[in-house]
Amino acid sequence: MIKILLATNNAGKLNEMAQIVKEEGFDKRIKLITPRDLGMDLEVDETGSTFFDNAYLKAKAFADQSGLPTIADDSGLVIDALDGKPGIYSARWGRDDEERINKVLTALKDVPSDQRQAAFVAVMVFYHPQTLTTIKTVGRMEGMIAKEPTGQNGFGYDPIMFVPSLNKTVAQLTPAQKNKLSHRGQALRQLLPILQAGLGKPDL
Amino acid sequence: MIKILLATNNAGKLNEMAQIVKEEGFDKRIKLITPRDLGMDLEVDETGSTFFDNAYLKAKAFADQSGLPTIADDSGLVIDALDGKPGIYSARWGRDDEERINKVLTALKDVPSDQRQAAFVAVMVFYHPQTLTTIKTVGRMEGMIAKEPTGQNGFGYDPIMFVPSLNKTVAQLTPAQKNKLSHRGQALRQLLPILQAGLGKPDL
Repeated sequence: MIKILLATNNAGKLNEMAQIVKEEGFDKRIKLITPRDLGMDLEVDETGSTFFDNAYLKAKAFADQSGLPTIADDSGLVIDALDGKPGIYSARWGRDDEERINKVLTALKDVPSDQRQAAFVAVMVFYHPQTLTTIKTVGRMEGMIAKEPTGQNGFGYDPIMFVPSLNKTVAQLTPAQKNKLSHRGQALRQLLPILQAGLGKPDL
Repeated sequence: MIKILLATNNAGKLNEMAQIVKEEGFDKRIKLITPRDLGMDLEVDETGSTFFDNAYLKAKAFADQSGLPTIADDSGLVIDALDGKPGIYSARWGRDDEERINKVLTALKDVPSDQRQAAFVAVMVFYHPQTLTTIKTVGRMEGMIAKEPTGQNGFGYDPIMFVPSLNKTVAQLTPAQKNKLSHRGQALRQLLPILQAGLGKPDL
């Protein structure tokens, strides 16, 4: 059993990741630890210029303080017609979800339906503070920015992220459906089998 | 069998890495491809500010051009008393090995024997151009900078890199001994079992 710290205090994210670790059958080999379990109180400024930079900053800071191998992530909405914005600024793009959504809809008001491609992107980083081994995986959920919000589930930009293959916005998916498809879920599902190779070896 | 491109045209490095892949029993699962095999003629400027940056630049450039998952490395000599120099500039520190070695010995001429700690550091990067999964491993070979060159084997800074536990400079080791201990060998031996987890899966 290897202990891995999750560099987040977001309870929703912790639950989602623990659920995926269990579903994928890794819960016998990986014990996820939270900063709260360790009594850690660490804030990391997200000063990087990419999702990877910010995820790495968080993973390294928590790993160096705890001495434990650590997983962190950074994620956001990337809109083609806005040259990738809001990107790493997705969470800081406005004061609340409503303001953030309105800002996107205003910026895209003259962009026609077939040019509103976007993706939720998640970058997940594993960092080992002793060996310095670092693993990055990327998850994407593709869609189109809708003209108006629809749906009550999820959070953030979910109500305006329309997934053509499902004919629904992400906010119209059940939590279980969203977990299966989500960018963060994909990034973690890619990371787990890679980590598995090193589990039980002292030098991962 | 997964094909992995090695982002180097250095025949010595290619042979060393192929040898390690074979010794570790991965040659049934990994087929190493060289740029020459593909008729590639690509030069990548090492403009990064860290070993990782430079190794990543090389891996990504070769992977993007070939479409193949790619391994690249960057390595150098890190001397504590010189704040980590020559570091990423190790190969560009002088016109030839003799000039580079003399430059180090001159810089350290007033540094006493017990303060001449140094390490050969290698950073190895695996990059997958379709999934963007990136894996970094680090190998180190610790030593002390000798007062004068000794030994005829190896290359680069080997004649002034004294390994106390062996009571020899790296240039006094046989190629087989050096391969076993080398920073590049360690980084690759850490990378192989991590890669193994994803082999056979289309989405590593």
